[in-house]
Amino acid sequence: MSRVTINDIARRAGVSKGAVSYALNGRPGVSEETRHKILDVAQELGWAPNRTARMLSGSRTETFGLVLARDPRTLGSEPFYMEFVAGLQSELSRRGYALLLQLTPTAENELELYPRWWSERRVDAVVVVDIRVSDPRVAALGELGVPAVFVGDPAMTGGFTTVWTDDATAMASAVRRLVELGHRRFGRVAGTPGLSHTRVRDLAFTQAVAAEGLTGTILHADFSDVAGGRATRELWDHPEPPTAIVYDNDLMAIAGLSALSELGISVPHDVSLLAWDDSALCTITHPKLSAMHHDVMAFGAHVGRRLFDLLVGAEPAAHLDSTPVLVERESTAPAPR
Amino acid sequence: MSRVTINDIARRAGVSKGAVSYALNGRPGVSEETRHKILDVAQELGWAPNRTARMLSGSRTETFGLVLARDPRTLGSEPFYMEFVAGLQSELSRRGYALLLQLTPTAENELELYPRWWSERRVDAVVVVDIRVSDPRVAALGELGVPAVFVGDPAMTGGFTTVWTDDATAMASAVRRLVELGHRRFGRVAGTPGLSHTRVRDLAFTQAVAAEGLTGTILHADFSDVAGGRATRELWDHPEPPTAIVYDNDLMAIAGLSALSELGISVPHDVSLLAWDDSALCTITHPKLSAMHHDVMAFGAHVGRRLFDLLVGAEPAAHLDSTPVLVERESTAPAPR
Repeated sequence: MSRVTINDIARRAGVSKGAVSYALNGRPGVSEETRHKILDVAQELGWAPNRTARMLSGSRTETFGLVLARDPRTLGSEPFYMEFVAGLQSELSRRGYALLLQLTPTAENELELYPRWWSERRVDAVVVVDIRVSDPRVAALGELGVPAVFVGDPAMTGGFTTVWTDDATAMASAVRRLVELGHRRFGRVAGTPGLSHTRVRDLAFTQAVAAEGLTGTILHADFSDVAGGRATRELWDHPEPPTAIVYDNDLMAIAGLSALSELGISVPHDVSLLAWDDSALCTITHPKLSAMHHDVMAFGAHVGRRLFDLLVGAEPAAHLDSTPVLVERESTAPAPR
Repeated sequence: MSRVTINDIARRAGVSKGAVSYALNGRPGVSEETRHKILDVAQELGWAPNRTARMLSGSRTETFGLVLARDPRTLGSEPFYMEFVAGLQSELSRRGYALLLQLTPTAENELELYPRWWSERRVDAVVVVDIRVSDPRVAALGELGVPAVFVGDPAMTGGFTTVWTDDATAMASAVRRLVELGHRRFGRVAGTPGLSHTRVRDLAFTQAVAAEGLTGTILHADFSDVAGGRATRELWDHPEPPTAIVYDNDLMAIAGLSALSELGISVPHDVSLLAWDDSALCTITHPKLSAMHHDVMAFGAHVGRRLFDLLVGAEPAAHLDSTPVLVERESTAPAPR
């Protein structure tokens, strides 16, 4: 196969050579739509960047880093990170970038990694996830001068480039819709406490329920199926159990559905369940799960684009990703009488 | 925190300093059990390898590479790769290794990556997955001299170190058990054609069914929920539909269960379903899915250990991982009369 040139891409995409160059080098100067089109054509034609030319223009590692401070066991069945990484990779692979991925047992181990990666020039920039309240990574990466995109509430990311979702608004709309359906007692099976998005959703849930003069119970779990099932049974054991439960991810909602179904409790007749994220899993349960829909792959791709922005000197900014919206399927219904 | 030394680890683990050194450097000379114990203690104490000492002893990148030539979209909801990567990472993170992960749109792009990674010394070794029949990566990596662990049928990996599961035996035992339950018409919703493990299971299924003088239909899908649901409906539309269906992963089995349940067909009363891999998803459906159980995280960890073996000059060998065994839950039952 003869080598694909910028000319070939420009001709096929119907744009100028300059536009192709801007798009392929991740520089501003073309619209997001045109950039997408050009990258799609480049990929279709099998364009490979000329590494030598790139090396001369800088000393890029063509690698971004991502550290997950988690027990590997919790990653296997949780669709969120696989979808996020898949979305991130979809942007990276279009430009020949790889992802350096490392799991560490603790947040302390994570902090030790960044100076090593940076001093050895193993990454051009990093993605920082699972933002915690008072997150020490803000100061650590700031001191090192590592370009980074934080994924989480911009109030907690100290001026770094941030991609975030407005979970407070999403949670308020979820509760509002359940109130419209006649629900008066609410449960929330929340993710790991200490994470900023768990905190944001906790607060929004409490406020939304209180604003209606209603009651709500929050139980914290850890996003796993086991903990999700356990928390659901615990909510149901209450003398006055909730008639609607909002979950912090899909896996816990599916486990909750399964736990209730084992107890002979009908969803949505006896209790409404609302999942969060809306992976493919929500449509293959029976009943299908209603969910706060968030396109996690697109979210990962969005983070990928902001990483490339950093390489061309973009100013730090908070980028709002799409706000999760309620998709009603079969697990939510009017409250039982 | 003061620096953790090999002495500290030896004292806590109740072993000699020499044993600790062997274990931490991935060298033979200690039993697998002792190695595990030492690595656990090291992790618990927060031991960090002295990188300078390591650098002097060689020029390790402390990185292994993994390329997935797949559409990012198919990765998000498929538990296999997340569990596999999580298991791999569990071994890597114990020794401070990272994973360089890259998604490529095509197998051709994958072949172009290895020479780059190797000439730039970005990885110490690579993991090769999704082995195809007559896989060009065998010759390509052999010529480059890249240390590699192949994951798949050793008959197709040209003498490279290989970690594999005996899917033929597993498939034969699955069919045998379903025959015992009185089933006479079988369906198989298979993965992507062209992959070696799809081929191995296709052959084993055909042979096992033929050996009983029975009939079986294979439909190829692509491991996705959409394709799994479609293939299941197609099998059911047959004038004499199967009474037992064996799937190539969990996601397609769950989608099949959902598709049948929408058609008002009862599992396992009308038809038995058998999933493959047995991720956490199988126990949170209703009915819970019977499955050929394979501990995918342990499989990934096994591959990780073989990667470290390569670094200390282990001879290539085929390593048999555990054979999937049938876990009977609620989706398999005696054949309908």
